[in-house]
Amino acid sequence: MATDEQQIRDLIATWMVATKAGDTDRVLSLMTDDVVFLVAGSPPFGKQKFAETQRPPDGGPRPKFDGRSEIQEIRVVGDWAFIWTRLTVEVTSPGGQTHKRAGHTLSVLQKVEGRWLLARDANMLTPVQA
Amino acid sequence: MATDEQQIRDLIATWMVATKAGDTDRVLSLMTDDVVFLVAGSPPFGKQKFAETQRPPDGGPRPKFDGRSEIQEIRVVGDWAFIWTRLTVEVTSPGGQTHKRAGHTLSVLQKVEGRWLLARDANMLTPVQA
Repeated sequence: MATDEQQIRDLIATWMVATKAGDTDRVLSLMTDDVVFLVAGSPPFGKQKFAETQRPPDGGPRPKFDGRSEIQEIRVVGDWAFIWTRLTVEVTSPGGQTHKRAGHTLSVLQKVEGRWLLARDANMLTPVQA
Repeated sequence: MATDEQQIRDLIATWMVATKAGDTDRVLSLMTDDVVFLVAGSPPFGKQKFAETQRPPDGGPRPKFDGRSEIQEIRVVGDWAFIWTRLTVEVTSPGGQTHKRAGHTLSVLQKVEGRWLLARDANMLTPVQA
């Protein structure tokens, strides 16, 4: 049986792999139904809006994602936990242009029916010059 | 005896009042010694760097702060809690120019010797046109 900390590391690793693979359903299965995403310059949003951002609205080719998450701290308190990470994300549009963003995240996780899920997420990534 | 939720609301209110009053020592007393501040575009920083940003380096007049914090959610788990807020901050330089920033924060709080303190803070504020 993996420790909570290892399960949380596995959650983050699975998130990155599923995102790279374009497996939106898998990514959506890694968050609570009431998840809240907080980013700069936009209102808070939830699971449905997150799903929309992953799927191209016209059904066309989706951008390619790549990224690396380095966990800086994990603190488990019962069925809740928080982590903060150093995150780098590269998004390449179907046209071939790559946008790189880097920065930190602070996230709250919740253990629901034995599985750790993302519950609240603060994203402070900013554009990086290539 | 105030509930944990009320004590956390008091902490945020005290933080805003002390910041407006320029009472840096009071603000510093509201955070853990190992506090981590996460912002966009800069490395993580702690208590000492926070203090430096509050005190003008030349000992000259300090900028005036005003602000409003609207708590959107408080979740207490034992001696830990997380909150997220809608925050607006106005900083007026000694020269009279005002810069307004608004957005959301996600914070982790820790109860230390019976007192709630800020432990981790993610700040996603962006400039607002006057």
